[in-house]
Amino acid sequence: MNTFDAIHARRAVKKFDPHHKMSEEEIHQLLSLALEAPTAFNIQNWRFLLVQDPEIRKQVRAAAWNQEQVTDASLLIIICADLSAWKNNPERYWANATQATRDFILPAIHDYYDGKPQVIRDEAMRSCGLAGQTIMLAAKAMGLDSCPMDGFDFNAVGKIIHLPEDHVISFMIAVGKKTVEPHSKPGQLPYAEIVKIDRF
Amino acid sequence: MNTFDAIHARRAVKKFDPHHKMSEEEIHQLLSLALEAPTAFNIQNWRFLLVQDPEIRKQVRAAAWNQEQVTDASLLIIICADLSAWKNNPERYWANATQATRDFILPAIHDYYDGKPQVIRDEAMRSCGLAGQTIMLAAKAMGLDSCPMDGFDFNAVGKIIHLPEDHVISFMIAVGKKTVEPHSKPGQLPYAEIVKIDRF
Repeated sequence: MNTFDAIHARRAVKKFDPHHKMSEEEIHQLLSLALEAPTAFNIQNWRFLLVQDPEIRKQVRAAAWNQEQVTDASLLIIICADLSAWKNNPERYWANATQATRDFILPAIHDYYDGKPQVIRDEAMRSCGLAGQTIMLAAKAMGLDSCPMDGFDFNAVGKIIHLPEDHVISFMIAVGKKTVEPHSKPGQLPYAEIVKIDRF
Repeated sequence: MNTFDAIHARRAVKKFDPHHKMSEEEIHQLLSLALEAPTAFNIQNWRFLLVQDPEIRKQVRAAAWNQEQVTDASLLIIICADLSAWKNNPERYWANATQATRDFILPAIHDYYDGKPQVIRDEAMRSCGLAGQTIMLAAKAMGLDSCPMDGFDFNAVGKIIHLPEDHVISFMIAVGKKTVEPHSKPGQLPYAEIVKIDRF
């Protein structure tokens, strides 16, 4: 599917066919595309947790205002971030670069994040957003639909998935085969209110 | 361009042709595609500031470690978010919905964000990430390249662009015609380290 068409056609879908299955190959393809999303300093701070066990899906649904897409979707991805990624052997992220690049970038990574928890958290949410849209557009191009969700009890879901102490959940994406067309967009702001030139 | 190809081909590019111009139509097309990105509760909290004035570009470059893509790119987009979007006449975001939907969703928006500054900030960064990847993939599909950037002095850039008190900058994207192919990826983590099943 053409990129512009995928961007236009992607809509949040809440009614999925509970009998539709994604193959292992399709899941691998979708997540491999997510891994192409950019991260600052290439720290690859996102972690994608796929909830495959139906019992865990039920628990997550109970922590998500009982929204049916949580259990009906073919795939439920909880988009998380590792807040320690920047300091967890960052040499790995630049292993194929020149020594000169490594000598420059590794101290830069340290200085950018060290002692700055809000900067680290902002990076987590931003990275997850970048990867999440990659997933949703790729799903559309695979003939599937998606629903981005942040309407759930983050602490409860964190407990269910054994979220490590130094990780955060950013949001979830349900992916599957839609059974109902979404409504038309509910109220979009005009271009001129969103796009500004030079200064606010 | 096919969506999968755009996802694979998008790379952070730092060397742009300073003589390449984007037409007004191309800029409008690119930003219109950004407006298709999803936001929680449709609050459309992103704001896209285009730095067109060469003098302001120079000021931003000085606040961005003198990185040349800031002035050489055809378009420089500072991706910001309005932290008050959720409470600034949210009826607008659901104007075309049914009264029943509005009656449900408007109190839900209030309760989700009211008194929760970290939730509001997370939403800002996440929304900007979702829109930013839309911009970068759309740019690729238009035959252009991009560079996502958060290596700059956020406070200094905020002053230059007269960022309102209740707005934040998430990151910048430089868009233009590349002059040099990017290096191969510097060190990607294995799929199994990033993609988890059911629990951490």
